Amino acid sequence: MNGSSAEPHLFVVFGGTGDLMRRKLLPALYHLANKYQLGSQFKILGVARSTEYDDVSYRQFAAEALNEFIGTQDGKSNGWCNECLYFQSIQKGEAKDFVALRARIEAIEAENGLPGNRVFYLALGPTAFPSTIAGLGESGLNDSQGWTRLVIEKPFGHDLETARELNATVHAHFKETQVYRIDHYLGKETVQNLLAFRFSNPMFESVWNRDRVENVQITVAEDLGVGTRAGYYDQSGAMRDMMQNHLTQLLTLTAMEAPAAFEADAIRDEKVKVLRSIKKIRARDVIFGQYDATQNNGHSTLGYHEEDGVAKDSKTETFVGLRLHIDNWRWEGVPFYLRTGKRLRKRVTQIIVNFKMPPVSLFQTFEGCHLHSNTLVMTLQPDEGFVLYFDVKQPGQGMNLQRQALKFRYSDKFGPLPDGYETLLNDVITNDQTLFVRADEVEAAWRLYEPLLELPIPRYGYESGDWGPQEVHQLLAEYGHRWVTG
Amino acid sequence: MNGSSAEPHLFVVFGGTGDLMRRKLLPALYHLANKYQLGSQFKILGVARSTEYDDVSYRQFAAEALNEFIGTQDGKSNGWCNECLYFQSIQKGEAKDFVALRARIEAIEAENGLPGNRVFYLALGPTAFPSTIAGLGESGLNDSQGWTRLVIEKPFGHDLETARELNATVHAHFKETQVYRIDHYLGKETVQNLLAFRFSNPMFESVWNRDRVENVQITVAEDLGVGTRAGYYDQSGAMRDMMQNHLTQLLTLTAMEAPAAFEADAIRDEKVKVLRSIKKIRARDVIFGQYDATQNNGHSTLGYHEEDGVAKDSKTETFVGLRLHIDNWRWEGVPFYLRTGKRLRKRVTQIIVNFKMPPVSLFQTFEGCHLHSNTLVMTLQPDEGFVLYFDVKQPGQGMNLQRQALKFRYSDKFGPLPDGYETLLNDVITNDQTLFVRADEVEAAWRLYEPLLELPIPRYGYESGDWGPQEVHQLLAEYGHRWVTG
Repeated sequence: MNGSSAEPHLFVVFGGTGDLMRRKLLPALYHLANKYQLGSQFKILGVARSTEYDDVSYRQFAAEALNEFIGTQDGKSNGWCNECLYFQSIQKGEAKDFVALRARIEAIEAENGLPGNRVFYLALGPTAFPSTIAGLGESGLNDSQGWTRLVIEKPFGHDLETARELNATVHAHFKETQVYRIDHYLGKETVQNLLAFRFSNPMFESVWNRDRVENVQITVAEDLGVGTRAGYYDQSGAMRDMMQNHLTQLLTLTAMEAPAAFEADAIRDEKVKVLRSIKKIRARDVIFGQYDATQNNGHSTLGYHEEDGVAKDSKTETFVGLRLHIDNWRWEGVPFYLRTGKRLRKRVTQIIVNFKMPPVSLFQTFEGCHLHSNTLVMTLQPDEGFVLYFDVKQPGQGMNLQRQALKFRYSDKFGPLPDGYETLLNDVITNDQTLFVRADEVEAAWRLYEPLLELPIPRYGYESGDWGPQEVHQLLAEYGHRWVTG
Repeated sequence: MNGSSAEPHLFVVFGGTGDLMRRKLLPALYHLANKYQLGSQFKILGVARSTEYDDVSYRQFAAEALNEFIGTQDGKSNGWCNECLYFQSIQKGEAKDFVALRARIEAIEAENGLPGNRVFYLALGPTAFPSTIAGLGESGLNDSQGWTRLVIEKPFGHDLETARELNATVHAHFKETQVYRIDHYLGKETVQNLLAFRFSNPMFESVWNRDRVENVQITVAEDLGVGTRAGYYDQSGAMRDMMQNHLTQLLTLTAMEAPAAFEADAIRDEKVKVLRSIKKIRARDVIFGQYDATQNNGHSTLGYHEEDGVAKDSKTETFVGLRLHIDNWRWEGVPFYLRTGKRLRKRVTQIIVNFKMPPVSLFQTFEGCHLHSNTLVMTLQPDEGFVLYFDVKQPGQGMNLQRQALKFRYSDKFGPLPDGYETLLNDVITNDQTLFVRADEVEAAWRLYEPLLELPIPRYGYESGDWGPQEVHQLLAEYGHRWVTG
């Protein structure tokens, strides 16, 4: 989140011809360059197995991507591509190919007077991570006369063991301070604002604890099914794809103590403390679901088992809802409810804090007068903002309380928000690890969820367009709670 | 605030030909009747010294008032006046006149089958209160076969001694449970909602104390000068006209403890406790002002001393700003700032709670990042609603905090609010004293302010359209505070 200016550098993207590069990284880099946030002197080197490209054709490829995804049809973006981009094939990724890459990098740096500051962004599938990291290390590209930073896309392992292996490979060649494990959710303004909100608004921070909070609910819901990602998804599932990373990040930022300073390691220390304080989640705290084929207003959607690329007897969960408890002074006794899934009612990401009811109701003597608890809804998408629900007296005779909303929407005040990748790439370039996931964080999250994937927990069916299996409502009803949709 | 239905009754208004009757009482009674909140069987008897009216001409007078103030041009309101209204002259208000009044009342009741339930509303100047109350008592109109209620308009005395005398006169003839001292501010929805808001929203109630609140500010500002009321006003002033009643009511409702029950005496007990806990206000805690003649954009306004009916050497304050402390467990150390006056910036009534700053600022390392305290603004007029100011991170790079508003406006949800008199008349008829001021409350308020009127406190001049004399800003600056205008 640092605003300091970027130093001259070379930005190297592995997977330079891939979808992430086209859709997200190139647009983000272009926007940053236009805001002068990449510094005065930077170049981008696309790296891929492909041997089809040279610098000229790669610049053309990049210009087309910018045109497609951010609609830059003018000469400006073409000029930018011509000026900034280079391409280098990594061939089969053998040792000699990394040596050649190193030579190319040094040549570009020499040609442009760059001091050896380098970002290596791995926009690759997870199977390619270890060999690429090793290739960089063994060719000496893990160090330079300037700084060297490594950016890794999720998933960070498939389970605790593979996460540990990946971390071991990373640490064999890089120091943790060089490593940026990216979770694009953390680039969202509302997520970043969560810390600002909590620690600059004492009115809220003072009620952010077991004395005042009844429960916390975190929802990351998608309305679509697995679509063309079925092959990948069936090996992964909602727990690995969403819960272990995105929801857990939201959970730790919501629950953490105030850090000693607003610095990457101080904040990540506090996040890890939350993860370590979470009580073992029991099988009975977890509801898994798989979406059924559904007919709705003449519109029919496939069941998960009918999707192309999904095994007919697949046990992969497309929904998970769970309850967990954080066993510390702040949160003891407060259930945290997390849910995520595909084919749910709508696409929405929300953190909801439900406060306790008043200890006594002064208004119970009034017929038909119902109290509601105060509820804070923080929406991360699609319409970023805050809503605080509170009770007011309905005008007129009698005492009827009505739930009303104090509202704030980002877009009303600030217009459209930048894409999360912009924020995160800027942080990489300016050396701010705050919004990136540390090795011990990844492992602590896996330690929490992995055991659940091995337990014989049933997979309940649910209708497309619903909020998951009916059983997930029972999970809250046991404690007298209900899911809130803000 | 009770919603129970009204019993058959006779509503007697002293001052039945006056301005209050025309502008407020008749419209409120008509609206209530149309909502069936006066019960199935009621009549209204206008009483005045005038001998010009009989029932027929009084009904015409009332129909014209309704037409003028609520624009009822149809036959419906005329029919209502013909059906419901009677007139009786009280002549010179001698004993025989009250005997005649009693006979007339009993005749109307007999004619209409009313059981003897009576409201006596004194819409009179304060000098007429004692003789009218005594007249009612001595003629036996303080009691009946049904219930009898006495409504008294402000001012409740001119100082502590006259307030005591008035209360003694009242209590010589009526029981306190029969008495409704009306402060029309208390009929406003936002004032009524203050209790609902505080005691049904534990998120706010839990920060409503010295641990979390930095200061409380209550403003009742008028933009106009004394106008045609100069004669009255110069004998009264901002302290007597506004501070002793309206602002003090807002203060006690804001500061009071939760009552044992939502009942009139339980609530009024708590309000009196607040008044008794207020430390003696010192001369140096008070700023008095008088508005100066002002030229503004070619528009000039008279100074207070130039107003028609004001003595050239008048010491009457048209502005008062003061600081007080409530010496109890909840509020010790929290300054309450109250201000009211004429010819101020705009017409507005607000209660503002400023919360404390965070104990540490995590964001101080970010250049140009300024924290603001959380502030709750409750606006009573002109645009009723709540605003909670909080800090959010400004989108984009860096950590810039911006003050933003969570907002709720009554009119967005409920449309126009009923006039305060409607609420209060309904409460009189349904026997709910919650929103009326008790004898001991009146006296406790006078005990607080009266000594200040006798101290040699300077009267500072201030410009029309300003927020009072400059010295009133110094009053807050001494404690590191600033007036907030929401």
